[in-house]
Amino acid sequence: MPNELPLLANGPVIRRDAARNREALLQAAAELVGACGVRDLTTEAVAARAGVGKGTVFRRFGSREGLMAALLNHREEEWQASVISGPPPLGPGAPPMERLVAFGASRLRHHREQAALIEAAGSTWGENYAVLGFVSLHVRTLLSQLSVQGDLGYLSTALVAPLAVPVLRQQIDAGGMSEERVIAGWNDLVARVVAQPSPTRSS
Amino acid sequence: MPNELPLLANGPVIRRDAARNREALLQAAAELVGACGVRDLTTEAVAARAGVGKGTVFRRFGSREGLMAALLNHREEEWQASVISGPPPLGPGAPPMERLVAFGASRLRHHREQAALIEAAGSTWGENYAVLGFVSLHVRTLLSQLSVQGDLGYLSTALVAPLAVPVLRQQIDAGGMSEERVIAGWNDLVARVVAQPSPTRSS
Repeated sequence: MPNELPLLANGPVIRRDAARNREALLQAAAELVGACGVRDLTTEAVAARAGVGKGTVFRRFGSREGLMAALLNHREEEWQASVISGPPPLGPGAPPMERLVAFGASRLRHHREQAALIEAAGSTWGENYAVLGFVSLHVRTLLSQLSVQGDLGYLSTALVAPLAVPVLRQQIDAGGMSEERVIAGWNDLVARVVAQPSPTRSS
Repeated sequence: MPNELPLLANGPVIRRDAARNREALLQAAAELVGACGVRDLTTEAVAARAGVGKGTVFRRFGSREGLMAALLNHREEEWQASVISGPPPLGPGAPPMERLVAFGASRLRHHREQAALIEAAGSTWGENYAVLGFVSLHVRTLLSQLSVQGDLGYLSTALVAPLAVPVLRQQIDAGGMSEERVIAGWNDLVARVVAQPSPTRSS
């Protein structure tokens, strides 16, 4: 698509169209993933459902992997919004221990649902320190509200670590644990951290 | 290298040569990684140091990535041997809590040293459930010796999770924590799990 005009001249209109197509494609991809799973998702089906040409998928997302990565980002943003301003106990308003327990189960389910997408996104979805940073900060804030003593910066990352996709795959897919068992185990781990049987306990 | 003879006819001799070359190449690669790091390692330099042709590297390991993956496996085996039969406190003979603390620091250092190799091995080194299984079982055994109550199957995988390379990268490379801080944090986490302030505590 050669274009000799300066991009700025017709940029805004193209950008508005592009944004609309992008949103429609993400919506269509999300619906198809929900209906058929990630593996059977084709860019043709996504384009058809969004009412655009297949080429638009590649112009907006570069590749099928890029579309999957964008969908992951989109869902991560939705999940983070539910933590920041969604209903309790995941969102604000519940006691910190209830929020922590709700966080663990919600993050586990989120990761289980995204695992196939993460694989489909391949190398376009790397280690995302911004996401890990948000999640760790949330846990750290709750530990602080629970008056947990110790290195909360470390403890928060350590409590987030067992909720990562590869660990859940090891526990559930390879190890045969149920999701319920993993959630109960994580809650028990958190309870042991919060109970902090240290002589400097101040709560 | 077309070869119309049945492989079995001259197999043993080839296999003995192959094993010798493989061992020499792994040894050379390990020495060069130690001296120059992973990034600057070339297959030419490894072949030259091992006294074989460059083609032998590709015949034995398929690719530079394959060589890195084989080196990773080799080092993992050495590390596991030091847990199974090395000197205490990492190896047998020390009290279980001392072994657990020694395990954490040793596993962290092992992963920090292997991180560049793991990246260089790329897709040829995936999630290795056999390795994760060994490590988790070791921690589970020590938790059991410490009379920890609860779901030891879950707790062992959860304690191993924060020692994974991506978590250490988040904490140390992206987050600026020192290795000492991470080791102290992990020891504190383990102490909280072992202290288990639950009403069913039996120790």
